[in-house]
Amino acid sequence: MAEVHPGTVSRALNEQTRALVNPETAERVLRAAERLGYRPNPIARGLKTNRSFTVGVVIPDLTNPLFPPIVRGIEDRLTEAGYTALIVNTDNDADRERTQIAAMRARQVDGFIAATARLDHELLAEAGAGGTPLVLVNRSFEDGSVPAVTVDDREGIRLAVEHVAALGHRRIGHLAGPQNVSTGHRRYLGFLEAMRTAGLEVPAGYVSFTAALTESEGTRASAELLKRQPRVTAVVAGNDRLAIGCYDTLAAHGLSCPEDVSIVGFNDMPFVDRLRPPLTTVRVPQREIGTVAADLLLQQLSDPSQPAREILLEPALVIRASTGTPAA
Amino acid sequence: MAEVHPGTVSRALNEQTRALVNPETAERVLRAAERLGYRPNPIARGLKTNRSFTVGVVIPDLTNPLFPPIVRGIEDRLTEAGYTALIVNTDNDADRERTQIAAMRARQVDGFIAATARLDHELLAEAGAGGTPLVLVNRSFEDGSVPAVTVDDREGIRLAVEHVAALGHRRIGHLAGPQNVSTGHRRYLGFLEAMRTAGLEVPAGYVSFTAALTESEGTRASAELLKRQPRVTAVVAGNDRLAIGCYDTLAAHGLSCPEDVSIVGFNDMPFVDRLRPPLTTVRVPQREIGTVAADLLLQQLSDPSQPAREILLEPALVIRASTGTPAA
Repeated sequence: MAEVHPGTVSRALNEQTRALVNPETAERVLRAAERLGYRPNPIARGLKTNRSFTVGVVIPDLTNPLFPPIVRGIEDRLTEAGYTALIVNTDNDADRERTQIAAMRARQVDGFIAATARLDHELLAEAGAGGTPLVLVNRSFEDGSVPAVTVDDREGIRLAVEHVAALGHRRIGHLAGPQNVSTGHRRYLGFLEAMRTAGLEVPAGYVSFTAALTESEGTRASAELLKRQPRVTAVVAGNDRLAIGCYDTLAAHGLSCPEDVSIVGFNDMPFVDRLRPPLTTVRVPQREIGTVAADLLLQQLSDPSQPAREILLEPALVIRASTGTPAA
Repeated sequence: MAEVHPGTVSRALNEQTRALVNPETAERVLRAAERLGYRPNPIARGLKTNRSFTVGVVIPDLTNPLFPPIVRGIEDRLTEAGYTALIVNTDNDADRERTQIAAMRARQVDGFIAATARLDHELLAEAGAGGTPLVLVNRSFEDGSVPAVTVDDREGIRLAVEHVAALGHRRIGHLAGPQNVSTGHRRYLGFLEAMRTAGLEVPAGYVSFTAALTESEGTRASAELLKRQPRVTAVVAGNDRLAIGCYDTLAAHGLSCPEDVSIVGFNDMPFVDRLRPPLTTVRVPQREIGTVAADLLLQQLSDPSQPAREILLEPALVIRASTGTPAA
């Protein structure tokens, strides 16, 4: 219809090569394309460029309120760059994870962004080693071998400990997340470090470990902590869900928060400002974690030789009503 | 490597045609494929079958707690069937919606599942009319022209009104959602109907309309309701977020819930059981909405001649502490 060679049509339709074509010719091609209702076929483009312009986003569970803002940040940035996110939920189940990752590799995703719960994570390490760029969010490998975007966990816990110490608390307990999960491990180390800096001791039994970052584990571990150390006056929880579980334990023991025990969470999930009492917590820039991770992956895609690096985002303490001065 | 004709390899590798090949030959082909590390290329398969095995999922905002369980249900069912969900957030912005849908059409999604906020929704109707199967979730067109999966809104509101009426309330107000959104409209009609059935009047001013299903609109509209009708003793809210906004209004007016005013929500979002008081609400089977919608779309894909139908899922009343007998 434009009466030019097919190669010219191709160059005229591609924005990156349009300048190679005489402007009037390009205009004629574009008009013809519009009249014909032409739409580029990204599937065919994928075959030609060996790019699918898709990114696999591996999360444990979209219904965990931590993830939607992160995923939203990832999607917004990828969409701007012409990429589409394929999201899979693994439920932290190794088999399901394997199947899902294989399915995405079969779809030839150009890269992965993963918020996997486990540190000893062969499959994703393989994906990375196999040449498919990989960025971790909210998690990291301790050896720094994989690019990652996390909040500064130690700094966050330091803010929490400093806050309750400044209120006058001395007997401060910690509900620690699983130690094979980087957030759990780093926050635990951060707690020990911050207590040392504050000149406070952490006697045996003041740290109660959990098997998962859930309300029910928070309830169980805080009941254990109170049983071993009934004189604890403040609890720094490894995340908000553990803190919510601790609320339940206090209620079951007839104790008040913050009058008897102050509680600090971590994450600032939606609606924790509406709990009774509203939860003092460490705010994590969740959406920003997503956008920064997408940026990091896009950089890897445009220049695979970039060295792996971890980006630490700054947390912020949000003081609400679950913390107060200790009882005399 | 298997020393057979390429056509035989193709038939042996495709599960649906494998029975056409001699079992020993098929075995030889599969062994060779494994040794060679063969993986089917879904991109090439997409070109050949004219199917992308992807489905566009259009939601307003993944960070609205209503959507993650629905999306999770959709993804679980689509994954089982070999499809991948492409999720886009439109923020209820018409321009963004147009761009996102165009991008997904360019990716040749095989169908759409949409939780769009607006009833007058040309673009999606077009998508449907253009031959791309479309299923609505949590929303529906009044003319029934598009398959949809929703909760039975009228039944849900009936449960809410019956509950507070049985507690002895007579002056019952309604915080109505936007009337150009099917859930808002149907719940409003359901409220009028249920009040009539209960033999109760709805005097002028007992319904307060909102512009959006958000906490801030709930606060504004409930303040208006209380100003016009200070003797209201119960409020049936169009959704949980409006109910939460109503909590704020009561607190601002020095009123207690449920002592002064009982409140019922709609949806049973995560964590509303942890509000103070825990919210009585109508539970919506969100995840099931997602799985049923995915089933409906898969049916459309396998047999496009299926007539459009709307599936209504049953709601359930969850009685918590935000409702009680009216003050004497």
